[in-house]
Amino acid sequence: MASSSFQINGDRLNSTLQSTCTQWGALSTGTGMCRLTLTQEDKQVRDWLVTECKSLGCEVKVDQMGNIFAIRPGTAEDRSPIAMGSHLDTQPAGGRYDGILGVQAALEVLRTLRDNNVETYCPIALVDWTNEEGARFPGAMMASGVWSTKSSTSLDACWDVKDKEGIRMKDALDHIGYLGNTPCDYRANGFECHFELHIEQGPILEKERKSVGIVTSVQGMKWFAVRVNGVEGHSGTTLMPGRSDALVTSSRLITAVRDTALKTKLGVATVGMINSDTSSQATIPAGVNFIIDVRCSTDEMVDQLVIAMFKAFDDIVVEENNGTSYKIERSWGLPESEFHSHCIDAVRTSAVSQVGEEQIMQMKSRAGHDSAWTSRVCPTSMIFVPSKEGVSHNPNEYTSPEHCVLGAQILLGAVLIYDDKVKHGKH
Amino acid sequence: MASSSFQINGDRLNSTLQSTCTQWGALSTGTGMCRLTLTQEDKQVRDWLVTECKSLGCEVKVDQMGNIFAIRPGTAEDRSPIAMGSHLDTQPAGGRYDGILGVQAALEVLRTLRDNNVETYCPIALVDWTNEEGARFPGAMMASGVWSTKSSTSLDACWDVKDKEGIRMKDALDHIGYLGNTPCDYRANGFECHFELHIEQGPILEKERKSVGIVTSVQGMKWFAVRVNGVEGHSGTTLMPGRSDALVTSSRLITAVRDTALKTKLGVATVGMINSDTSSQATIPAGVNFIIDVRCSTDEMVDQLVIAMFKAFDDIVVEENNGTSYKIERSWGLPESEFHSHCIDAVRTSAVSQVGEEQIMQMKSRAGHDSAWTSRVCPTSMIFVPSKEGVSHNPNEYTSPEHCVLGAQILLGAVLIYDDKVKHGKH
Repeated sequence: MASSSFQINGDRLNSTLQSTCTQWGALSTGTGMCRLTLTQEDKQVRDWLVTECKSLGCEVKVDQMGNIFAIRPGTAEDRSPIAMGSHLDTQPAGGRYDGILGVQAALEVLRTLRDNNVETYCPIALVDWTNEEGARFPGAMMASGVWSTKSSTSLDACWDVKDKEGIRMKDALDHIGYLGNTPCDYRANGFECHFELHIEQGPILEKERKSVGIVTSVQGMKWFAVRVNGVEGHSGTTLMPGRSDALVTSSRLITAVRDTALKTKLGVATVGMINSDTSSQATIPAGVNFIIDVRCSTDEMVDQLVIAMFKAFDDIVVEENNGTSYKIERSWGLPESEFHSHCIDAVRTSAVSQVGEEQIMQMKSRAGHDSAWTSRVCPTSMIFVPSKEGVSHNPNEYTSPEHCVLGAQILLGAVLIYDDKVKHGKH
Repeated sequence: MASSSFQINGDRLNSTLQSTCTQWGALSTGTGMCRLTLTQEDKQVRDWLVTECKSLGCEVKVDQMGNIFAIRPGTAEDRSPIAMGSHLDTQPAGGRYDGILGVQAALEVLRTLRDNNVETYCPIALVDWTNEEGARFPGAMMASGVWSTKSSTSLDACWDVKDKEGIRMKDALDHIGYLGNTPCDYRANGFECHFELHIEQGPILEKERKSVGIVTSVQGMKWFAVRVNGVEGHSGTTLMPGRSDALVTSSRLITAVRDTALKTKLGVATVGMINSDTSSQATIPAGVNFIIDVRCSTDEMVDQLVIAMFKAFDDIVVEENNGTSYKIERSWGLPESEFHSHCIDAVRTSAVSQVGEEQIMQMKSRAGHDSAWTSRVCPTSMIFVPSKEGVSHNPNEYTSPEHCVLGAQILLGAVLIYDDKVKHGKH
């Protein structure tokens, strides 16, 4: 078994991760990051990544959604790459590990293969997926969704998505030089399989005192853009009983989102973004927009939670009886994803060889990942390493250097184990 | 009595009002207006106003807050002007009458005095007060408050207030050429008295089938900028029970603002503006900001409502018991204002001469006005004309041309009546 033969360079991994974060997207204080997709910070780290990968002998392709594929050749002539993917973009106030660790670990794997002159059977690819966060252009895991062809949002629809400044995604891709020619479609540019190292973004590994999570699935998710309509009015002259206040109704709906999730215990439901039509303190708002994020272990539970939530909404609107109303302006989602036993087994074997059974646990992912889309069209699984206090999407996000190194080492092992199976006709 | 001698030119008033709105600040559809204070639209209408007033023989002064004083001389050498003031700025989605009618009517009065070669005893002044709306730079009736020296917000503090783009008010004044040298202080630049024609912005005149409101007072108001703090987290991985969600707590507080006002029947309370720290749908917000606007007939009732509201807030925070907390970041206000019997009487006499007793009613103003500040340092009163369906701060705000003309005619009469009283030593 090749997995234990090669050691990644942990210091190189951690120092590269930290220095590239410091250079491109660091917030002014602490270790927080703001590297929104397709911004100048994202362009700079992409340019650096492309240069690094080329220097390692990789062929680099960019597809129509700006996904970067850096491919180190194998000896087989007719095999697709074994891919190691994640993302370099972050939330507006995110951390240095969510996504970034997965890409940096993939680079460290490529460096280790080069250092040791390893000849793999399959090509080995690093993938940087565009706009995983959906923080600048709404729609998380957007580009892997297009690539999988299984997302309800098509390439053209994604190109047309606008950021808050009204910039179209296609123009943003073009502007930073990452509107590539490679078709964004797994049928034209596919993988043997897809591995992703990621931080857990939750508290379970830490609480259970485990070092590694073998991820077997990703929970189902749905998002709903909600619009509440009322009637604008003067805050001083419009008497309380006659009001059709869109923000009061929205407030009750947002409370109901939380209450329904808490009561039904079906999953989690969150409102993060809210916008009132008015920027005046003296105006009863005519309208309010907000987005609901719903996630449960299964698609069925998502649907149950959503039905209960909208039932509560309808009851509130009837009870308010003040002319306010709500509508769902857009809904999109990510169905639950089961990972593939071949990939899960490769990760497990690699992990056991590093830390033994007692440091490992099987788990579901509660966050969405690009792997959820790749799992629909090629064997996929993920490796989780612990997040301090479960914190993520937050400048205090932290994973220890030791856990980063461990994750990368397990990733290398899983890739080589899988490659060996393919070479010997077992997968 | 001079009041009935001179007729204003109603067509001129209405066509000037409409054409200047169409040119400077009209929304793309309907009759809505967005003429935020100290923007290019505001500069253009100010420039036009200054030119018009100068062509009528007025001296024009601009003070340190950009207030414009256009003064037509009288025969008395030692008298301050009888002022007719209101404002040309609007809400972001406001109408063509709130404030604008008062300034345009004052201009029509000046034009009528010129057309008829009227020699008044006191000087007669048109005043355009800066930032009455507080929609761009938070703090309604800001510049009249500074001028009165009775506001808790000083000149320097107002100069430092920033808009959403971070532009300081002083820089915005300077940028459009309206950072004047005249002291913004009634002791250096005062009035004999102050009249203001304004739309009611409420439904009472229409409901009571009256044409004119004689305004005797303005209700008390307080504003509170509230900050709710929670803990940022990932919407998928943070379980419901452990959440410290600033938006859920804010939603409950905003609902409590409405519920407390409705239950206590003490007055009105509104939240129009709300901002979440995050622009990501996948993030539990760490913080939310909103502004509460409270208005009651008396200052005592304002205080009672505020106490009840914050008691409800405290109860909610205790009940949530999830680590979220709230604080009042800034509070400011406008105490209740009693208008002066001399001015009220002048308006009444003028109104009766136009429409008779049965078309008139005495009323309180539920909206704040610059007159609330001027009333603290000089005799003041207001004239209200009906608002269609009570709608204001809304593109559908409407007052009929006939009511605009009637208001201007009554304003002219009140000014001349007051002037006559001063001339004869009765005031």
